Amino acid sequence: MENLAQDRHSRVKAEKHKELPPSPPQTEENDSESSEEVDIPLPPPTTIPTETLDVDKKTPDAHVPRDPRLIRLTGVHPFNVEAPLSALFNEGFLTSPELFYVRNHGAVPEVKDEEIPDWEFSVEGLVEKPFILTLRQLIAKYEQITCPVTLVCAGNRRKEQNQVRKSKGFSWGPAGVSTALFTGVAMSELIKRARPRKKARYVCMEGADKLPNGFYGTSVKLNWVMDPNKGMMLSYKMNGEMLRPDHGKPLRAVIPGQIGGRSVKWLKKLIVTATPSDNWYHIYDNRVLPTMVSPDESANKPKWWMDDRYAIYDLSTNSAIAYPAHEEQVCLVGGPEKYRAQGYAYGGGGRRVTRVELSLDKGRTWRLADIDYPEDRYRDAEQMLYGGRLDMSWRESCFCWCQWSLDFLVSELADAKDIVLRAMDESMNIQPKGNVLERPRHDEQPLVPRHYKQGRRLPPFRAPNTTSTNARRLDGTGQKIRR
Amino acid sequence: MENLAQDRHSRVKAEKHKELPPSPPQTEENDSESSEEVDIPLPPPTTIPTETLDVDKKTPDAHVPRDPRLIRLTGVHPFNVEAPLSALFNEGFLTSPELFYVRNHGAVPEVKDEEIPDWEFSVEGLVEKPFILTLRQLIAKYEQITCPVTLVCAGNRRKEQNQVRKSKGFSWGPAGVSTALFTGVAMSELIKRARPRKKARYVCMEGADKLPNGFYGTSVKLNWVMDPNKGMMLSYKMNGEMLRPDHGKPLRAVIPGQIGGRSVKWLKKLIVTATPSDNWYHIYDNRVLPTMVSPDESANKPKWWMDDRYAIYDLSTNSAIAYPAHEEQVCLVGGPEKYRAQGYAYGGGGRRVTRVELSLDKGRTWRLADIDYPEDRYRDAEQMLYGGRLDMSWRESCFCWCQWSLDFLVSELADAKDIVLRAMDESMNIQPKGNVLERPRHDEQPLVPRHYKQGRRLPPFRAPNTTSTNARRLDGTGQKIRR
Repeated sequence: MENLAQDRHSRVKAEKHKELPPSPPQTEENDSESSEEVDIPLPPPTTIPTETLDVDKKTPDAHVPRDPRLIRLTGVHPFNVEAPLSALFNEGFLTSPELFYVRNHGAVPEVKDEEIPDWEFSVEGLVEKPFILTLRQLIAKYEQITCPVTLVCAGNRRKEQNQVRKSKGFSWGPAGVSTALFTGVAMSELIKRARPRKKARYVCMEGADKLPNGFYGTSVKLNWVMDPNKGMMLSYKMNGEMLRPDHGKPLRAVIPGQIGGRSVKWLKKLIVTATPSDNWYHIYDNRVLPTMVSPDESANKPKWWMDDRYAIYDLSTNSAIAYPAHEEQVCLVGGPEKYRAQGYAYGGGGRRVTRVELSLDKGRTWRLADIDYPEDRYRDAEQMLYGGRLDMSWRESCFCWCQWSLDFLVSELADAKDIVLRAMDESMNIQPKGNVLERPRHDEQPLVPRHYKQGRRLPPFRAPNTTSTNARRLDGTGQKIRR
Repeated sequence: MENLAQDRHSRVKAEKHKELPPSPPQTEENDSESSEEVDIPLPPPTTIPTETLDVDKKTPDAHVPRDPRLIRLTGVHPFNVEAPLSALFNEGFLTSPELFYVRNHGAVPEVKDEEIPDWEFSVEGLVEKPFILTLRQLIAKYEQITCPVTLVCAGNRRKEQNQVRKSKGFSWGPAGVSTALFTGVAMSELIKRARPRKKARYVCMEGADKLPNGFYGTSVKLNWVMDPNKGMMLSYKMNGEMLRPDHGKPLRAVIPGQIGGRSVKWLKKLIVTATPSDNWYHIYDNRVLPTMVSPDESANKPKWWMDDRYAIYDLSTNSAIAYPAHEEQVCLVGGPEKYRAQGYAYGGGGRRVTRVELSLDKGRTWRLADIDYPEDRYRDAEQMLYGGRLDMSWRESCFCWCQWSLDFLVSELADAKDIVLRAMDESMNIQPKGNVLERPRHDEQPLVPRHYKQGRRLPPFRAPNTTSTNARRLDGTGQKIRR
């Protein structure tokens, strides 16, 4: 399969980057209309795990080698993990597959490499011309595209909410977010070929992961699939290599700007329908019911679950502080005068994050952070990458996270009780206020998942007189990270 | 101009509706694939004003007859007005042109009826084939479409904010919002014909209204103009009749889902550019600068105004209570047991309002209102209307306001100090919390225009023992409305 290997140019670059962290040189100013190669962010150094971890050996995922740094959030199995935030953030704009967060509902379908080209999926339902395609055919017969996309689990930062009031969801830290260059085919091409019928309104997706309540499945609107500005695609490559098992090997949907739960892995079916998916996981997961609906009410009245207006699609504007890191320590005496706070932010629905602000006085006053948008560097590029065409020059949507930074005087940080962070998107949607550690009144329902509220980080001081700059890193569960 | 007159079918319906308020009968269930005529909301009864009001006679707008019910917000001239909220709301889904809000920056350009067909506008700038078109040519050579759109001034509900802390904007009440069926041509068609060059990224619009700082102008992204899902159009008809002078006669832009300031009236130019508009009104109006930028800072550093990330495009989710009306009175004794609260809500960027909630206890507990989406009734219609094709069946965007209602027990209202209202859109963006009448701390900058915060209405009780059901209506400025 000639397109599977990385093209030579990218391989050379990747090898260069194995030695150094990625730091693209300045783009040269050029008025010429000819399309030169633009220097774009490329993936960080990567290592493909080859050994099954001990803890996985007695699980159905024994066939899946994994990176031991990943923090497990729901016990051993199913595999729901995030990288330590510092590790994720230090990789830069793009995330290696081994540190990319994973949300699995059950066992990972086992697909041997030799089975990949013959993997079949169907396009069916309310269409004139249903068909079945193999991955080999998908690559041979359709235009291939490559696109950077940030995926985020709906539960990103939920741990902060659960500390205030336990919700049904499990405790993601702030690293349930990852970014990769996905190669594949625009989903609209497949649907167009199948010719949706007049009453068609939704595209349902179904995966091969067999779960207690059936195969995992969900749906998005047909109009969105057909809208080039929404960038919805089928993908078989991440950062130039075939999808690894935890990421949907060999084929997945990639639904930019929406919660990760809509990006179905191990994709087997696209089903065009007149109504939203009736899959159990589409109905009973990833929803925010109105606050007055009690658990009893929701248990007894299915209408609450069947109302698609309560399903989460677009990501909410969100942000987190990577530095100062958890329990990081900084010198007060004899060290640098300034400290650079850093972190990430992202918007939903393709909306750009237009401002990021930090406060040292619990939100009385705010300072504006600088924002870097690495995604924008791809917009000037018109080139092939990993066998797919990179073509974002006409698009305005932002489907990736951005990185922010702001310098504080170390002396200011010393006086601060905490650092509060908030981001706003281009629609002027701002993260809601609220000290995430305040106790709610007993009858207060969470309005929206509280983990979209403005984040807080304690400043990095423990012992004012210390001269040590060692940071004691803890993982997301509070366990000391083994060095 | 054969398309200017209302088609016979609509005229018959309109005449019927002159006698009765619009109340469409039930749509019949029908599985047939044939496109039947669907019963769609049609405009309310309308009267074209013919006389100049006394107060306008000595202004440059002496040529513009107007409805005396409109409430002037900025003195006599320029004309910035909204209808009394009850009058607006009682018209139903669509608004008559005489009660449609008006935001003018200066004098209304005078265009005589006989000049309409020869009205010229240009499509120019970073294009291969610039051209000039007359309105006659626009109607003859392009596909005509008709579409319901709610326009909203960026300042809608700003009066509530100004009562807390005076802002730079003037005091719109909650009726700076209106809805009409606009007929015209998709803006993308004009731009497509002109063939934008490679570096083109924006479409600037310029009107014929000559203001202190030049003609009024602004811009939107080229990508949005070309995106059929954004519905951007040039329009010359409102509710089946030619635009009236205050609404842009004879030609305007209609930019759905964004603040009204992007919908340029008396349109003369579309200019395709590589950067946003450099028009004074695009730069210095309709912006929300970061909170830490002081008036001095913003006055001395143009960079704050030139950063397009701080310009307002999408409307913010917003809502208002129409009933109980201002100072309405309701019987406690001997009257109905229930009271039906009613009002409107809308989202921005084409996003549907997915829930509306009211609280009688200052936001401790909330109740879910019923929402009616009249805009949805057009989605099943495939027909000509007012000379343009109504074709929304493929689109998912919501560009119109919706109406909500919720019944309270009169006894509950008697105990309540106020009624708080909030709406959420499909991206889970909810109106921010905050008692709009609380005094801010002296140094508190408004985070976002406070008039997007949750609205408050005092309950309709003054004299508990009264048996009167008369409501004393006041206009938006506190003046008693003449009967």
